[in-house]
Amino acid sequence: MKSGSVALVGAGPGDPDLITRRGLRHLHNATLVLYDALVAPELLDEAPRARRLYVGKRAGRHAMPQRTSERLMIRYARRGERIVRLKCGDPFVFGRGGEEMLALAEAGVECTVVPGVSSCIAAPQVAGIPVTHRQVASGFLCTTGHDVDAFADRLRGISPGALTLIVLMSYRNRARLAAALLEQGYPGSTPAAWVSGASFDSQDVRVTNVSEMADVDMSDDRAVTLVVGDVVSLAERSQGRGLAQLVSGGAG
Amino acid sequence: MKSGSVALVGAGPGDPDLITRRGLRHLHNATLVLYDALVAPELLDEAPRARRLYVGKRAGRHAMPQRTSERLMIRYARRGERIVRLKCGDPFVFGRGGEEMLALAEAGVECTVVPGVSSCIAAPQVAGIPVTHRQVASGFLCTTGHDVDAFADRLRGISPGALTLIVLMSYRNRARLAAALLEQGYPGSTPAAWVSGASFDSQDVRVTNVSEMADVDMSDDRAVTLVVGDVVSLAERSQGRGLAQLVSGGAG
Repeated sequence: MKSGSVALVGAGPGDPDLITRRGLRHLHNATLVLYDALVAPELLDEAPRARRLYVGKRAGRHAMPQRTSERLMIRYARRGERIVRLKCGDPFVFGRGGEEMLALAEAGVECTVVPGVSSCIAAPQVAGIPVTHRQVASGFLCTTGHDVDAFADRLRGISPGALTLIVLMSYRNRARLAAALLEQGYPGSTPAAWVSGASFDSQDVRVTNVSEMADVDMSDDRAVTLVVGDVVSLAERSQGRGLAQLVSGGAG
Repeated sequence: MKSGSVALVGAGPGDPDLITRRGLRHLHNATLVLYDALVAPELLDEAPRARRLYVGKRAGRHAMPQRTSERLMIRYARRGERIVRLKCGDPFVFGRGGEEMLALAEAGVECTVVPGVSSCIAAPQVAGIPVTHRQVASGFLCTTGHDVDAFADRLRGISPGALTLIVLMSYRNRARLAAALLEQGYPGSTPAAWVSGASFDSQDVRVTNVSEMADVDMSDDRAVTLVVGDVVSLAERSQGRGLAQLVSGGAG
């Protein structure tokens, strides 16, 4: 029997030009693509011979339970399909790609992982914010904000300012997250930025601080990323002339 | 006067297939490429019309001081060149890309940043290690190990086990870093992995633990990444059948 395979492919933060060359090659050869809600439709056009199956999840609402999509991949791979599981950002950063890799390995299905540009780094970047910068931040911490108590626990003990903080899935809990940061000792004046729809045409960046970060009002139709730390002030230094170029990002 | 531009392009962790489509497009159009020591030579071939200038740095040894390469970019951009500054990994993760962006903005030179797959996420991944995993790690902390005292300071207060720890530039200080982790309260049995030359053919992965991590002996001709945390044990669960596929990574 002909044996199929699964590639867990990172689509990158949004713009279809930010997928890797290897990810594209897997799409070109795919016979079946399982894709998330926020994946750019142009990427599906890169898999002209493939059937498409929407398994999207958005902010807790799943089109299909995780186990169902894993079982589907196993079943179709056993029928000989070349499957691409196209995931936003990177498959191994809050993408449940690790669970899929293990489920496929346990079922004896060949599995390849193709990394993608993670929005935890790209979302600050398109706003002109480097997550590390000499004499400003010598590391970064990336986590999620959908469970505020767990967020506060993870933060406990960390000195404010030592590390850039990047928080995914944070917009809906912005008031409680701001309170948790203040309680943890972050000065209210600590620079903070919200980035919505990073790298898409609809991208929206709001530079604020911890005291005022909960007052922001922006669309969360696309992923929103929160960045907290002194590196955020670098965005303003590059703005005026820098940021517009950074955001447009077209080839020279 | 015709005005040039600079694109700070992330080359990804190593394998030339892991650059983004946008990064490739900038290379195709470049008239001048400034590149680092660890960038794959195949990527330079993607810029057939460009002159190439080596500005590489390796473990503290710089072919050219940072300010010199910034001044060069400004001078050549003013002459109308389309410059690609090709950087390992992502330009904004320990790559001094933020400094270059600011220097260019201050000089009035058009600058675009093209994100790349960062080895802080890709190096664990090619070893079969997801940096986050449900019920195992709900976030990750990425920093460097070239200054052990600063490393210990950054770690202070962080509960062992809450976050996956990713340490770049760590191999030469492995004994002192292991001691710092033990002193910080990390149990000696905490899983740890070294990944050398991630995504290159020469890739080498060693799974160990905090007690024994200093005993490893491997090549550091290419970048070495240290990963510490329970997610490392997932690599072993995917091994046998999983890891070989993960590492080979060829298109289906």
